[in-house]
Formats: sequence, structure tokens, C-alpha cells
Amino acid sequence: ADADVADYGDDELWAREPYRDRRLILKTARPFNAETPPKQQVDHFDTPNELFYVRQHMPVPELDARTHQLQVMVRLGEGERRFQFSLGELEQFPSVTVRAALMCAGNRRSEMNAQVKPVKGLSWAGGAISNAVWGGVRLRDVLLHCGLGDVDPTDLHVILTGADVDATGVNFSTSIPLHMALDPTADILLATQMNGTALPLDHGYPLRAVVPGAAAVRSVKWLESITISKEESPSHWHQKDYRSFNASKTWETADFSTAPPIYHLPVTSYVCEPADGEYVPVRDGHVLLRVRVDVSSDRGRSWSEAELQTDSAAPRRHYSWTLWSLQLPVQPRQEDMEIWVKATDSNFNTQPETFENIWNIRGILSNAYHRIHIHLKHET
Amino acid sequence: ADADVADYGDDELWAREPYRDRRLILKTARPFNAETPPKQQVDHFDTPNELFYVRQHMPVPELDARTHQLQVMVRLGEGERRFQFSLGELEQFPSVTVRAALMCAGNRRSEMNAQVKPVKGLSWAGGAISNAVWGGVRLRDVLLHCGLGDVDPTDLHVILTGADVDATGVNFSTSIPLHMALDPTADILLATQMNGTALPLDHGYPLRAVVPGAAAVRSVKWLESITISKEESPSHWHQKDYRSFNASKTWETADFSTAPPIYHLPVTSYVCEPADGEYVPVRDGHVLLRVRVDVSSDRGRSWSEAELQTDSAAPRRHYSWTLWSLQLPVQPRQEDMEIWVKATDSNFNTQPETFENIWNIRGILSNAYHRIHIHLKHET
Ligand SMILES: [Mo]
Ligand SMILES: [Mo]
Repeated sequence: ADADVADYGDDELWAREPYRDRRLILKTARPFNAETPPKQQVDHFDTPNELFYVRQHMPVPELDARTHQLQVMVRLGEGERRFQFSLGELEQFPSVTVRAALMCAGNRRSEMNAQVKPVKGLSWAGGAISNAVWGGVRLRDVLLHCGLGDVDPTDLHVILTGADVDATGVNFSTSIPLHMALDPTADILLATQMNGTALPLDHGYPLRAVVPGAAAVRSVKWLESITISKEESPSHWHQKDYRSFNASKTWETADFSTAPPIYHLPVTSYVCEPADGEYVPVRDGHVLLRVRVDVSSDRGRSWSEAELQTDSAAPRRHYSWTLWSLQLPVQPRQEDMEIWVKATDSNFNTQPETFENIWNIRGILSNAYHRIHIHLKHET
Repeated sequence: ADADVADYGDDELWAREPYRDRRLILKTARPFNAETPPKQQVDHFDTPNELFYVRQHMPVPELDARTHQLQVMVRLGEGERRFQFSLGELEQFPSVTVRAALMCAGNRRSEMNAQVKPVKGLSWAGGAISNAVWGGVRLRDVLLHCGLGDVDPTDLHVILTGADVDATGVNFSTSIPLHMALDPTADILLATQMNGTALPLDHGYPLRAVVPGAAAVRSVKWLESITISKEESPSHWHQKDYRSFNASKTWETADFSTAPPIYHLPVTSYVCEPADGEYVPVRDGHVLLRVRVDVSSDRGRSWSEAELQTDSAAPRRHYSWTLWSLQLPVQPRQEDMEIWVKATDSNFNTQPETFENIWNIRGILSNAYHRIHIHLKHET
């Protein structure tokens, strides 16, 4: 039931993995999972492609943009309707770009694990998130072309299936509700471009979904097919993971079949600089704090006024992170500093103070205040 | 700057106040402010009109449905366009009903006041919220009729002005962003009906705005005019109240001109039965807990599985409260019980554990866990 670590013994399967930048912080090699270093997150508003965090469930599939086909299957009981699009044929739809952060639902899991009790999953620190400008066409436009503007979307789902295959031959797949996919403000893309270039192999070349604001697992890479269905995806990634459980549930009592799937993510934030435990130089009586506010549907706020770098997207269509910097005053002989960050979204939802009451077996949605302790180095 | 208590000495102004149900919990008599008793909140999914909480800033104005006119003024720089509608003329637009809770942004202020430090405002407990089915026409439809589908809504505002007048002759007014007013899923109404009857005098007879999911102050009663403007409402209720400040701000340092206005409210919940400090009978080894989950954009969840009563509105258009009941097990000789409730919304935002870090000078957005302590009466 733990989809985080695949069990692939065969070296051959991994022989064609792409080159990865050595600055990425490796979590697992096979499948390849690696974080963007927090200080490099705040060095760039849009993460350079080679520094974008990588989350793989399986080996990277090899696809050819010239021959790649996207199947769209509408299965609503009265027989199936099928559509097929080459990448060239997808260009009939309006070309759009959307700036959006993607974040693993398990980002910051390691803090929940350390501060409450063990959770199961990759021990992400704060680096399973990056920001990019994605280019492609709207999923909504493709679905309308396929006649889905004429159905009641209630209780219907859009199953997204990738070309990556697990050890038992099952393709990666998950789903999102059809009403989400049809929402004109949701800006869900079928993307071929990332920060102005073709998608890298690690990020879904040649075609992926990008579901802004949602857990990144829904942004299926190496997209091969879309199925409109009365059921959610039957895959174990969809059925047995990325669901919400309360702090009382154990692996014995958790019932995945009745637990709500996680689509959109709650507000969170992270101190990217300095790092917890770091010795930090004091300059002119201040230390520099650089903070990332994630998945704020509109805007973030903090206790102190701060310099912010944000996207100019319209209200309720703001899907990128916000970066903050702040000069924090230091007392002349102060040796240590405890720093807490929290963000508040445009609905005035804010982060829980601690992980204790949001703890869950999978360590997801780990959005309590980020707290670090630093040591101060006064210049002499 | 405190708009909660008007200073009206003249008895004459209050001579025509409507009859009020004696079960309402009085907070101030002039203007009339009163809570719905929590146990009566959970007795009815839709609060009976006579038990709906009342929040007045001024005396109740006297209006006549037969002659009432709604002015719509579009003031976007290039001259003003004016429209006028009698209630009969508003019936040209499609008739709709929306089930929505209205909650004062200051609901539960008394807990923040007691648990952290003093805040300024009416000392609402948990009763400044009620739920109803509102009938009328969509504000969006009226605005489209007035040509506002053709303008870019960015940075434009819809100023709503009521017939209630303060001691200096200024009409009550506030505003919402035009993009909110035009959102087809926001379901903002110009309402004439409340739970199937004409609006009562205390609830805006004969016409009010209903802005689902927003602080109730935006649901302007006794609605006389709508102005589309490049500026937010200049009124002191809009400029000097219902804005967000962090816990460090004092009345001396708070700058209302740069603080974000509160439109939508964060997730919250409340134990309506039993009350804090109550002696509660134990039946068959259990006590009954009845909980209200408020302003959840989609659904609420709790640590324990519970029986829930909810509205069938479409996802993302769910504007009513959710009522829960749960049988909590009691040990044979247990004398006391501490109960905490929290809710989680469909984006998995949840409530802060305590009020300390969300404290603010006005005591609004007071949505920490609700915690009660009860005494258990075992049957003998
Ligand atoms: Mo994950
Ligand atoms: Mo209020």
C-alpha cells in the first residue's frame, strides 16, 4: 500500500534515466526522488528546470513527441466515445501559459515525523515544491471539444493515465473531479512546455497534466490517456494513497475507501533561509530571513511586514508561490533566535501551530508553522 | 472607530423597532444585537426567522415594498450610468434560492477576549450565525443587465448601501470586489425572501444583499443602492472595521488603510450542545454532542466519525453550515470531560489550535478550536 518506494530490482529498467543536476537533494535513487535545496528555491521565482524537484513512482518512460498520441475516452454508460490527438492536433486549442507551483502532498513530512510520531513515506524536508511557467492548452477546452460541456459533471471524474508502469505492468493513474476540470478559473493544462522549453524527461516529456493548487500527484506526467468516468481512478496510487485521515487513524483502522481524496492543498509556508540549526551572520544588527508561502489561493500575510515577490495573476487564479524576505532585528549580544513562520490565505485560513492534531499515517498535508532555531554570529 | 456600538440618545429613533423573540440572547438593545441560542441553532437546519441572530448598527429603517427602488450607478470615470428597479422590475431576472449561513466576522470574539487579552467589539459567544434559504435574483444577472459583463473587473468594486443611517446622517455601506459579484458560482443574491416568506424587518425588509461565505457585514440589509466604482466603499464601516491585523498590531500601530478587508471567512466550528460548564446526563454510557461546522466551502470533517446533516449544494457552491451529532463514550465513574472540536475544509485547511497567534484588536476571525469542559451526571 506504500506507493512511495517501488521495488524494481532489474538494472535494465533504470538504464535510460535522464541526467540529474547534482545540486538536487537525493531522497531515493530508484525511483528517483530529490528535493530542490530551499536556498535555491528563493533564489529564483521560477525554479530553473534542472533544479525543479523530482518525484517519480517508477522508471522514466521513453516517449517520442513526433508520434505521441493522447487518447480521450468518454465512458458514461451508453457506450464509449473515443478521441485521439497528436501533439500537433492539440495545437488547434488556444495556447496558454499558467504560472503554478507544484508541491508533493507529502512535503514537510519529515517535520511531522520528527515532532509527533513516525509516518510512512519519503522523508521530504521542505524541498518537494517548485514553481514554473507551464505552457500548453487548457484541459477544459479539450473536454468541451469532446462534448463534455453538455453533461452534468456531478459525480463524474477525469482519469489521467501516464506512460510510467509499475512492476506489475500497471500504468500510473489518478483522477480529478470533472467539475474541477471544467472550471474556467482552475487553469488546468495539458502542458508541453516548462519555463519556455519542452518538458524535460523528468517532468513528463512530451505531455503532462498541470493541476494548479492541487497535490502534485494529480499533475500526471507522460500523459497517454484521459478517461471520463463515473468512478475515480481504480489505481492503487489513487485508491490507497493521497487521502485524508484524522490523527486517531492507524494503518489498522484507516479505511481508504471512505477517506476523501486530497485535491487542493491547504495554506503553508517555509523558512528557506537560514536553515534550522545554522550559524547565521548578523549584519547591521539584522539577520536576513527568506520565506516561501505556498499554495495561497490569493495572497499570504505574516506577523511582520515583509518584502514580497508575487505573481500578478487575477484574484482566485493565483497558483504560484509567494516569496518573502525580511530583515529581522537582533539584540547586540543575542546568541540564538527562534523563528516561526505562518501564512494566512485570502479566506483567512491559517496554518495550525503544531503537527500534533494534523498528524496522519501518511504524513501528508503537513502544514503546521515552520519553526527553526538559529545561532547568531556577530561580526567583530 | 468602533462601529459596534452606535450612540443614539433619542428615544424617538427607536420607537418603531420590530418585535423580537425573547429566546434571542440580547447583547445590546440600541442598536439591537442578539444571538441565536446555540442549542436552538442545532434544533433546525434552517434557523426559523424569529430565531435568526440580529446584528444592527443603527435603528431599523422603515421601507415600503410597494414603492421601494433600487438604484444602480456605474461610475467608472467616463460619466455615470444609472439604472433603477422597483421590486417588481427586479422580477424580470431569474428567480433563485440559495441556502446560506450568515455569520458575523466577530462571532466567538468572547473566547479570544477571555483566552488571550481584551479585544474591542460586541462580546459574541457562538451565536452570531444562523442558516436560511434566501430567495431573490442574482446580483450577477442585474450587473450583466447594466453592462458590467463588458468591463475588466480587476480593481473595481460593488458598493452596497442600505437605508439605515447613523447619527451623523451617513447611510450604512460596504463593498465587495466586482470579480466576486460576477462569479457565477458565488451565488450572491438580491434577496426579498427568507425561508419562504418576505424578509422580516430585522433582516432587511424589503430587499437585502446575501453574500454567501462572506462576513455577514457584506450582506447589506435594506438595500437602496449599488454603485460600481474604482474605489472600495468610503464608509467607516468599510474603511475602519472588518479588516485583518496580525497579533502584534495595537490600536496605535494598526493601519486600516493598508489592511486587507475581510470578505470570505475561514473554516470554524462550535459545540452547540452541551454548553461549557454544563452538568450533562450520561445515557447508556454516552453523552450527546451536537456540533456546528461553519462556512466550510465544501465539507467538514472531525476526529471522530459523526452523524452529519448537510446541504446538497454542488461542490464549491456549498454555503450553508453542516450540523453534526455524535455519541461520545463515557467511563463508568468519569466525572468530567474536556471536549475539543475542529473542522477541516475541502482544501484541508483546518482551525488553529488556540487564539493566541490569531488574536487581533477587533477580535474578528476568532476561529480557534472550540473547547468546552463539562460535568457528567451518571444516572443512578
Ligand atoms: Mo508524495
Ligand atoms: Mo461584527
